[in-house]
Amino acid sequence: MMRPLFSRCAPRAAAFVAPRRSPLGLFQAARQYSITPEAASETKLQDIDPSQLVINKASNPKPLKKAEDLIFGRNFTDHMLTIEWNKTTGWQKPHIVPYQNLSLDPATCVFHYAFECFEGMKAYKDKAGQIRLFRPDKNMERFNKSAARIALPNFSSTALIDLIAQFTKLESRFIPEERGYSLYLRPTMIGTQKTLGVGPPGSALLFVIASPVGPYYPTGFKAVSLEATDYAVRAWPGGVGDKKLGANYAPCIVPQREAMSRGFQQNLWLFGEEEYVTEVGTMNFFVAIKNKQTGQKELITAPLDGTILEGVTRDSVLSLARERLAPEGWNIVERKYTMKELDEAASEGRLVEAFGAGTAAIVSPVRAISWKGKLVHCGLKDHEESGEIATKMKNWIEARQYGDDPHEWSYVC
Amino acid sequence: MMRPLFSRCAPRAAAFVAPRRSPLGLFQAARQYSITPEAASETKLQDIDPSQLVINKASNPKPLKKAEDLIFGRNFTDHMLTIEWNKTTGWQKPHIVPYQNLSLDPATCVFHYAFECFEGMKAYKDKAGQIRLFRPDKNMERFNKSAARIALPNFSSTALIDLIAQFTKLESRFIPEERGYSLYLRPTMIGTQKTLGVGPPGSALLFVIASPVGPYYPTGFKAVSLEATDYAVRAWPGGVGDKKLGANYAPCIVPQREAMSRGFQQNLWLFGEEEYVTEVGTMNFFVAIKNKQTGQKELITAPLDGTILEGVTRDSVLSLARERLAPEGWNIVERKYTMKELDEAASEGRLVEAFGAGTAAIVSPVRAISWKGKLVHCGLKDHEESGEIATKMKNWIEARQYGDDPHEWSYVC
Repeated sequence: MMRPLFSRCAPRAAAFVAPRRSPLGLFQAARQYSITPEAASETKLQDIDPSQLVINKASNPKPLKKAEDLIFGRNFTDHMLTIEWNKTTGWQKPHIVPYQNLSLDPATCVFHYAFECFEGMKAYKDKAGQIRLFRPDKNMERFNKSAARIALPNFSSTALIDLIAQFTKLESRFIPEERGYSLYLRPTMIGTQKTLGVGPPGSALLFVIASPVGPYYPTGFKAVSLEATDYAVRAWPGGVGDKKLGANYAPCIVPQREAMSRGFQQNLWLFGEEEYVTEVGTMNFFVAIKNKQTGQKELITAPLDGTILEGVTRDSVLSLARERLAPEGWNIVERKYTMKELDEAASEGRLVEAFGAGTAAIVSPVRAISWKGKLVHCGLKDHEESGEIATKMKNWIEARQYGDDPHEWSYVC
Repeated sequence: MMRPLFSRCAPRAAAFVAPRRSPLGLFQAARQYSITPEAASETKLQDIDPSQLVINKASNPKPLKKAEDLIFGRNFTDHMLTIEWNKTTGWQKPHIVPYQNLSLDPATCVFHYAFECFEGMKAYKDKAGQIRLFRPDKNMERFNKSAARIALPNFSSTALIDLIAQFTKLESRFIPEERGYSLYLRPTMIGTQKTLGVGPPGSALLFVIASPVGPYYPTGFKAVSLEATDYAVRAWPGGVGDKKLGANYAPCIVPQREAMSRGFQQNLWLFGEEEYVTEVGTMNFFVAIKNKQTGQKELITAPLDGTILEGVTRDSVLSLARERLAPEGWNIVERKYTMKELDEAASEGRLVEAFGAGTAAIVSPVRAISWKGKLVHCGLKDHEESGEIATKMKNWIEARQYGDDPHEWSYVC
């Protein structure tokens, strides 16, 4: 099969089409990320190759924002990392280019069929001024799983970590040195094939953008209250709720907005007639309970049964709990648990604490859950904004993120 | 709250930013569709207003493809309809502009959280040369439902139908006159706010593109065989499977590809332990069965319980069946039915026929379904490519689409 248009996309130099006049007298988008669907062959595909990285530095570096003015995900660094893929030759040369708009044909499959997945990770500056990533291998592993689930391409995790590290070092000046600050990194993959036929994308774009962020709780923890959602379901067995797909996010907004309209900060996702507790907003969820029979303290989170996102923070909390809480007598458990069980524990004074866990906040303590018209109190006293476990976890994880507690989880760029 | 960047987007003339040099020496994308998230106020929002339509015609009309070379969704007409929305003022002036790339900030929410929904509809040329839409009110009703489910804005159906009619008339030369040909129209709405915060988009873009298409079966019906998917689930009660969201499509590709790898043209979506039959690929599904007890012929499709797309063709088939088949003794039924029931009916010679129903094909006859390692034959004889009901439905619906059977379903532009 001939691919007359493919040559426009393969060598980077040819990937920029000549500018042409728009009907309004201005120049049209130069960068063509949308690829025609003709590409198809059986040749061996290239993996991502960091040695081929091409860097084009921005000529007008942005002024830095004051640390206290940073808002999550609104301001971005000078550059972005981009890597194109097509099904004929695989991954193309990686590029670091000035942060810029994507120019895409309106028929591009990402706009119609949600061929998109992403990761959320952070880079930290340690006391020695080194830049550190936190467990980037976990993010890459999940990124590949997410991509495969929607027929987007896979890649070498170490290759992309290498490139992200180079990109992050280039943006070093955007990472505030204060504790709690970091550079939020957003690796994203989108299908770029331009056809309305529903099929596996023949081309894709992987890009990484970076946004300097401040601490989630600038003045210390602030416990949130949740509304248990009983009319909408986030994920289900055989679905894609365990993958970090764009598809899982837009449908969450209305339940979230509904909860907020009634004065709750987040919604709590339940599943099934049993009302299993699954996730909170866009975070995993943990509860600390005293066992009804034995009185033993248990840290419980929902198991990875296909409906739960495989959170990196979730895994870190479990790992640290097994390392440091289990010796103190805690039982660390991944199992299904119901809202009824929480309610019973709360009413019997056995619900010790509850918190969300995710990259943005690390942990997010929960004061109460609105469920079936009543408020289930999660163990905090009125003057408390966090329980003991949440506080410990935040400190333990931050210590590893910032390199104070040297550990293999921290990747020095 | 001040919105310093909003003024760049409100008046159309100012919505195009000045071209600037890219680092690679070419001109950057001129059209800025990504909107900063600062917009927020409580003023009354404008609805879509067709009287404000601005048309900028393409200076270089595209050559027409030969009718027999048309492939679904690959080639587009000269223009596109675009309407921007923001939460401060509502819908902006509608524009018909030359078909062109969208230029979007890489942080735009459509790329990360799948804020996107769409419609599929067709325009037909009748014998008198008039252009006709088919039940556009049904598409607009569903488009609004889909948008609302993911916190995108709603609009007046009649206003958008008016604009689509004007757009379609402008592209009249792209609509082949032969029976079976049409202009596929793809109204699409995407969130355009540029922030990684997960929340309701403060801005959106509605666009309509058009692709001339040939008949789904250029040489007559060709029955397909299906593989029942038991490892993946398309939709769930409380989910979004009844809305036309991008989020429902990317996750369908792997099961579809799996089915094809084993020689089946499409996959059949089942639900639950009972293995209820729900949809086929991206179409609704109908079966004709003789009742086990009474022998009465029944045309059955799954009910709109929240897991089934509210197909316009599905509704048309049901309506025509109630009008024309019921008087002949058929029972027209919307109810849950299982794969086991189909298998039993097939083995007892009571499964008369089965077909998918959707805009692309109208109806798509099914020969057999692979289920639990056996092949369930759906009633067609070896030499047959369609059953009686599917053939009748295609003819009845086409007669209304092309205006041979004058009916209120057909909207003359």
